Amino acid sequence: MGLNVAQKIIKSHLVKGNMVPGEEIAIKIDQTLTQDSTGTMAYLQFEALGVDKVKTKKSVAYIDHNILQTGPENADDHMYIQTVAKKHGIYFSKPGNGICHQVNLERFGIPGNTLLGSDSHTPTAGGIGMLAIGAGGLDVAVAMGGGEYYINMPKVVKVNLKGKLKPWVSAKDVILEVLRKLTVKGGVEKVFEYVGEGVKTLTVPERATITNMGAELGATTSIFPADETTLEFLKAQGREEDFSLLVPDEDATYDEEVEIDLTSLKPLAACPHSPDNVVPVSELKDIKVNQVAIGSCTNSSYVDLLRTSMILKGKTIKEDVSLVIAPGSKQVLNMLANNGALSDLVASGARILECACGPCIGMGQSPCTDAVSLRTFNRNFEGRSGTRSANVYLVSPEVAAASALTGHITDPSELDGFPEIKMPKEFLINDNLIVDPAEDGKDVEVVRGPNIKPFPKADSLKEKVSGKVLTKVIDNITTDHIMPSNAKLLPYRSNIPHLANFCLTPCDEKFPEKAKKYNGGFIIGGTNYGQGSSREHAALVPLYLGVKAVIAKSFARIHKANLVNNGIMPLEFKNEKDYDDIDSLDDLVIENAVEQVKSGIVIVKNVTKGKEYITTIDITERQKDMILEGGLLNLMKNR
Amino acid sequence: MGLNVAQKIIKSHLVKGNMVPGEEIAIKIDQTLTQDSTGTMAYLQFEALGVDKVKTKKSVAYIDHNILQTGPENADDHMYIQTVAKKHGIYFSKPGNGICHQVNLERFGIPGNTLLGSDSHTPTAGGIGMLAIGAGGLDVAVAMGGGEYYINMPKVVKVNLKGKLKPWVSAKDVILEVLRKLTVKGGVEKVFEYVGEGVKTLTVPERATITNMGAELGATTSIFPADETTLEFLKAQGREEDFSLLVPDEDATYDEEVEIDLTSLKPLAACPHSPDNVVPVSELKDIKVNQVAIGSCTNSSYVDLLRTSMILKGKTIKEDVSLVIAPGSKQVLNMLANNGALSDLVASGARILECACGPCIGMGQSPCTDAVSLRTFNRNFEGRSGTRSANVYLVSPEVAAASALTGHITDPSELDGFPEIKMPKEFLINDNLIVDPAEDGKDVEVVRGPNIKPFPKADSLKEKVSGKVLTKVIDNITTDHIMPSNAKLLPYRSNIPHLANFCLTPCDEKFPEKAKKYNGGFIIGGTNYGQGSSREHAALVPLYLGVKAVIAKSFARIHKANLVNNGIMPLEFKNEKDYDDIDSLDDLVIENAVEQVKSGIVIVKNVTKGKEYITTIDITERQKDMILEGGLLNLMKNR
Repeated sequence: MGLNVAQKIIKSHLVKGNMVPGEEIAIKIDQTLTQDSTGTMAYLQFEALGVDKVKTKKSVAYIDHNILQTGPENADDHMYIQTVAKKHGIYFSKPGNGICHQVNLERFGIPGNTLLGSDSHTPTAGGIGMLAIGAGGLDVAVAMGGGEYYINMPKVVKVNLKGKLKPWVSAKDVILEVLRKLTVKGGVEKVFEYVGEGVKTLTVPERATITNMGAELGATTSIFPADETTLEFLKAQGREEDFSLLVPDEDATYDEEVEIDLTSLKPLAACPHSPDNVVPVSELKDIKVNQVAIGSCTNSSYVDLLRTSMILKGKTIKEDVSLVIAPGSKQVLNMLANNGALSDLVASGARILECACGPCIGMGQSPCTDAVSLRTFNRNFEGRSGTRSANVYLVSPEVAAASALTGHITDPSELDGFPEIKMPKEFLINDNLIVDPAEDGKDVEVVRGPNIKPFPKADSLKEKVSGKVLTKVIDNITTDHIMPSNAKLLPYRSNIPHLANFCLTPCDEKFPEKAKKYNGGFIIGGTNYGQGSSREHAALVPLYLGVKAVIAKSFARIHKANLVNNGIMPLEFKNEKDYDDIDSLDDLVIENAVEQVKSGIVIVKNVTKGKEYITTIDITERQKDMILEGGLLNLMKNR
Repeated sequence: MGLNVAQKIIKSHLVKGNMVPGEEIAIKIDQTLTQDSTGTMAYLQFEALGVDKVKTKKSVAYIDHNILQTGPENADDHMYIQTVAKKHGIYFSKPGNGICHQVNLERFGIPGNTLLGSDSHTPTAGGIGMLAIGAGGLDVAVAMGGGEYYINMPKVVKVNLKGKLKPWVSAKDVILEVLRKLTVKGGVEKVFEYVGEGVKTLTVPERATITNMGAELGATTSIFPADETTLEFLKAQGREEDFSLLVPDEDATYDEEVEIDLTSLKPLAACPHSPDNVVPVSELKDIKVNQVAIGSCTNSSYVDLLRTSMILKGKTIKEDVSLVIAPGSKQVLNMLANNGALSDLVASGARILECACGPCIGMGQSPCTDAVSLRTFNRNFEGRSGTRSANVYLVSPEVAAASALTGHITDPSELDGFPEIKMPKEFLINDNLIVDPAEDGKDVEVVRGPNIKPFPKADSLKEKVSGKVLTKVIDNITTDHIMPSNAKLLPYRSNIPHLANFCLTPCDEKFPEKAKKYNGGFIIGGTNYGQGSSREHAALVPLYLGVKAVIAKSFARIHKANLVNNGIMPLEFKNEKDYDDIDSLDDLVIENAVEQVKSGIVIVKNVTKGKEYITTIDITERQKDMILEGGLLNLMKNR
């Protein structure tokens, strides 16, 4: 039976399991990437593995998130990542070199390879036919150490592209249309594979815009074939040798199918506050705009910004609009500087920001209160811009540029003179902000500034586990409750002791204090405990505070896995009513913990109340080993 | 008797007083400038004056300090300033247009005019022969309302420049040499007037670098004549009509004289942590550098950055150096983008920041812990970079660029090929980020986001003033104690109620709470109360909290004036021992307050202790009127 592109890559990288949708498989990882907000912890975890040199084909550490540097923390983290990378065989992309996904496309990505990245938009590399998956830092650390990556075999969805985009309609509108159709929950445990006649009408940066925002579907990843267009792109990047043809077999089958008629698409916008809240731009016209922001890993390519410059050339942005543009990479910026496009942007009144994620992750350029902000980014969650009351619309660079000129949301398809742009035959290649790893890392000293704190490690499971109930929380607690993240806390991702002071404080202000006073203990949760962002720190920080188990009515899937990865037992009440019986500061005990975990049933004694509760620990055998040995890192080290 | 340049301008603007050094004079102000961190309050104060349209020849509101925008506060402030400017006849320079002093030189400054700016580096405009003085926001507000500006008539110091700078020696080295000779206290109540054969060898941007950093001498201002060079500069800016010749009379006299031999100067550096801690760069070589930052109002001109690009062209910065460059204005950035220089900078590995103050005011790019940071800025106070342990050296762009390449502090005079640069015959003129005021401001709505809070106003003095002692502090309390300022509080300069929660908290954590509980009252201070920065908020915030008088052993000069401006009595113990007698929460009363203030002697009764203290209020008649009427604003309004 023929295979599709996703299946071909999975098959050639399969280490364990069967390629049956929903079943756990393990795949070998060729490349990894990290960014700085997740990277510091990933490298601390990698160091804990005790591996001298990464075992991947190529691993790259990027700095693109925390580049405002309003205190020494960011620069300390950069220094740590730069030196730890040099020591352990990892390429280092300096601040200023650009956004990880853009630079990866340009300089590192290889069709047919697997890429694991500690950033949710890692699927961008699917634009050149990589199987690129976003994961937690610990998973990336393990992959760098040579460990395989476990996922459930995804369903592969065929996205059949027909026709060709009209002028003023862009790749952004394609993925917005997919989001409109399928919603932000439509991609769970699926890979979206783009095929059909429309594929060859799309350039690599356009494909990457689409795969990038596939993350908003909740998809495992998205992927395009590696074809003639891919070859031309890699040639222009001086990387012809990295190309290999990768297209679906003629008799390939798919688990599901969607069709998009490119010809019929119109400029679209995702309205506040969700990327799937999509309507035609024409329905929004006359909404007054305060801010326009162009950039992010979705739409900051050379072509995106060149077209923007051609729209703005010789004109002036509206008096009461602030237009900010963040090029995706030094290559992009340098090429725009060379050909006059940057001059045109500046002359129009644009503020040029550093080549980085910037406002997309709320790092700067928060708009004014109640602002309307048009952004070419990928997420418009409430408050993500740094301004709780702002209304963020996600649009293409074409819509953004046209609206910056008029001062209200503008459908550019009403305009004449669509600037056609050919992909360059040669990109400007200058990798002088990429630092090679040392040939021999032995003598490289890893610099740990005061913001780099040792990383908490779990112990192997004791026979008797006891402690106090530190807090009891309600249903639907998110990882944002467990470990809040904002512009003030983001610079402390490598500083667990500092973050610990904020753990669960939105629910229980005294939680950190109690955890320290009683030397750790138990958390009692309701249903869907740990929903929301996949934030690993929501497990790492409780580990640091000595949390031994979370006993809940039910868990969100990813958080449960993160707890296990960090050696914390996720126990579920057999009888949900037992939740009502437990109070804060009750003394709990689990006897014969090792045997009980192995059996999958764990009896928890409430010494204070003189009662017993039956709980289940519903995890795989591999995960049970993690709990017994004290987390994934210990498991890896002991192997 | 002949006059020097400074005296000529003062004479032509003199409203009150005699031009005798040390005596109070009042001068008419032609132009004003504000930046955003001081501007919000200045415009709130201006609004309180009730004047429809500014009475200056030209007033300009710049946005250059708070442009990172990590929350809505900055954008809210920008919006307020933009709309209040439009309403009241003030030009508005949008974020992205550049640093106030650079843009002022390029587009607004006029030789022979007076300029009052709410930024300490306002003297930059002395580079084109303006008498340009930095002042508090309230002074600027009053000037916009048509009020005169009061200063003590300064001494005029002749700085006689001989010879000509050698290659690789720059204007920065001239002012560093002056600072080395005279120290940071050497300029108090003085104007530094640059004359001699060396003057004509210096371009306008070079002159402006020198007058800019004259602020570090503590000088009233610094000034160059307006000569042929000035004319050429204004011509190239399309402003020939703004020129008038302004040179000292042949028989001009000066109060003091200094001589600088330009020919003998070498590249210099101001070492941590003071701008006058100056040594030759050659004595510092081999110090390893972590960060190089080029820009700020001192050294961000077109020529500065063009030379930097020529030094860096075709080379790569050292692997472990972060080089950041912030162009001074959109004009500078646009010209560099046009002629390929920006491309050379980017290609070398430089990170290009927005056209703004940026790292110079600690707004971003804080270096790593214990870093060595070379900066072309004007201040290297401990912690100002945002990194308490950083060692900041102030150097020229030439030294900075050379050091970025080698990775250690480098004397560029060892290098060949000094890039000679001619001033452009025509600058690129494009004022599309400058918003003109409305012809008629009546219908302009001033937008006040939630960060814009009403401004506290004093009442006229009551016959009986009573209240509790809210706190008693020790000697040498600074304005940083009274009103702390940092990257977290700077965005709240227009939000006195928020800042009030931090008033005096470094000395007495409960002060804000007590002030609110007891409806204001008295502060008891030691000697030199209110030393340090001229921060007006150190008076505004106590006013908001209901402080009626500060009774101290002695006051720092500027803070005392700020208290009076805001209607708070600065009382000095006749008998310093009385300080010991008073305790926190004692009840104090001043009877017949109006008569007593007029007399200059104020009896304070301590009801709790049953005692009386004799205090003096040592202020001018004009200042007594302010206390009686409730501050400078009321005085102005009542006129």
